[in-house]
Amino acid sequence: MSILVVGSVALDSVETPFGTAERVLGGSAVFFSAAASLLAPVRIVGVVGDDYPMEMLDFLVEREVDLSGIERAAGESFFWAGRYSYDLNSRDTLETRLGVFADFRPRIPEAFKDSRLVFLGNIDPVLQLDVLDQVRSPEVVVCDTMNYWIEGSRVALLELLGRVDILMVNDAEARQLANDHNLLRAARWIQERGPEFVVVKKGEHGAILFGPDWMFFVPGFPLEVVFDPTGAGDSFAGGFMGYLSSVCSPTADDYRRAMVYGSAMGSFAVENFSVERFQTLVNGDILERIMEFKEMTTFEHQLQEPHV
Amino acid sequence: MSILVVGSVALDSVETPFGTAERVLGGSAVFFSAAASLLAPVRIVGVVGDDYPMEMLDFLVEREVDLSGIERAAGESFFWAGRYSYDLNSRDTLETRLGVFADFRPRIPEAFKDSRLVFLGNIDPVLQLDVLDQVRSPEVVVCDTMNYWIEGSRVALLELLGRVDILMVNDAEARQLANDHNLLRAARWIQERGPEFVVVKKGEHGAILFGPDWMFFVPGFPLEVVFDPTGAGDSFAGGFMGYLSSVCSPTADDYRRAMVYGSAMGSFAVENFSVERFQTLVNGDILERIMEFKEMTTFEHQLQEPHV
Repeated sequence: MSILVVGSVALDSVETPFGTAERVLGGSAVFFSAAASLLAPVRIVGVVGDDYPMEMLDFLVEREVDLSGIERAAGESFFWAGRYSYDLNSRDTLETRLGVFADFRPRIPEAFKDSRLVFLGNIDPVLQLDVLDQVRSPEVVVCDTMNYWIEGSRVALLELLGRVDILMVNDAEARQLANDHNLLRAARWIQERGPEFVVVKKGEHGAILFGPDWMFFVPGFPLEVVFDPTGAGDSFAGGFMGYLSSVCSPTADDYRRAMVYGSAMGSFAVENFSVERFQTLVNGDILERIMEFKEMTTFEHQLQEPHV
Repeated sequence: MSILVVGSVALDSVETPFGTAERVLGGSAVFFSAAASLLAPVRIVGVVGDDYPMEMLDFLVEREVDLSGIERAAGESFFWAGRYSYDLNSRDTLETRLGVFADFRPRIPEAFKDSRLVFLGNIDPVLQLDVLDQVRSPEVVVCDTMNYWIEGSRVALLELLGRVDILMVNDAEARQLANDHNLLRAARWIQERGPEFVVVKKGEHGAILFGPDWMFFVPGFPLEVVFDPTGAGDSFAGGFMGYLSSVCSPTADDYRRAMVYGSAMGSFAVENFSVERFQTLVNGDILERIMEFKEMTTFEHQLQEPHV
């Protein structure tokens, strides 16, 4: 089952303690697709300028990523430059040039309108709503957002919440949206406004899925070297939805597995610059990591006699 | 199998957003014992002043906690007063009066010297070494420490590492000790200096056990109300060692379960002021929470056909 992703298709220049990458592939739709396409066919809707090196997306085409929804506009592509701190826990934005992305109005191609799985990358909630108006009968809509929209487009964002199945944000965003520091209460607040599930991503600390009356926790995969954190969250989303696309009516167990695929893809993303790790990744690598997650989290419980 | 704990027996005054508690039970040995004694007999070695309300420890005696190693000295008991921020993520120390604890020299009673399980609470590493010299043949020695000793008693601390089986610290302490921001590398650095295991506690984000060639991750238990975070780490240690005391030669599976008991006890600790939650806790509550952890972390994996 194909996944529709709507989001940014960008170029990034990144400095980390390990090196520098200039004008490499970036953007939410690209990271999402690089991860998800290892598990499922993907359809991208986005916009690039006439400077975009489309040939660099060839590896996605080979994996059944349909790029026909990427509009080419006159002007410059979305460009972001950033520098990470030595411990990779914070980053400074050195430059952001929206370019043609500033006027992005997602147009879903006719052939994409039957998409059942939809990922709304981090764009204006007004546009995210517009995407949902164009898709005929989506079954699972997953939505990302950020502080900028939580502060500036709250009304549209709350309307959007009523139409998405899963909100997938980081812990700071969940807290800000619900105006509650407690994550559990924040998730419940969000669920009351629409989404059946809330996925809270916590970077190296893992992620929590808040379901209707249950929760699931997946750790971040411990790595000796985190090379470049850019795109980890969108890669998580790609792994999550890529896994979901393989099942018909997802059960609680499917959502659990999807979380593990998400965390696995997030961990691969940070092992190299841009989407480079996904270009060499094979199915065996993914399965191996999934089993490592299982090893890291499984315990058997024997009943114990009480001491008192 | 009895557990020997050496640490502070204190009085705390705590302010949280939910209320205030004046001169309530506190100290690492007290939190440890309150949690561990639900699972195993405990022997405390510590010191209190002549102002200490010993009758408040009666509930521990009823659970086979041996208080005969608590020395009563002339003077004031260790007193700590602190105030938590509204989000409970930081705290200000309002007052610390070491009192008789300043001259604490642990004397292990003859009857305690056969202890096989030893928890060295957060005290001067020189004193922790001295405790090990007094205990005949401990099988599992678990040790806590803090930034103050990492900075000020590094030589003794490194000597101590060569004699403990498990170092149990929080993430900031592990990073500071190894002088490495990456937790995985920091844990490996510590393991090379002695401890077969390193347990890194991350508060609400859970804890990681770094074993010889494997890792185990347990989440923090999501709570709608965190009432008072004081003592969570020592309660974790109490749950961890309390569980270990029930097994003869702990296997990897036992250590995994011990981590879950640790996180469970840490989560109970923060549900009320001081050790109050442990006073009403029954075995069924613990088992229920253990099963909730299992529910939160278990996933089954079906092999999936590769998409590409």
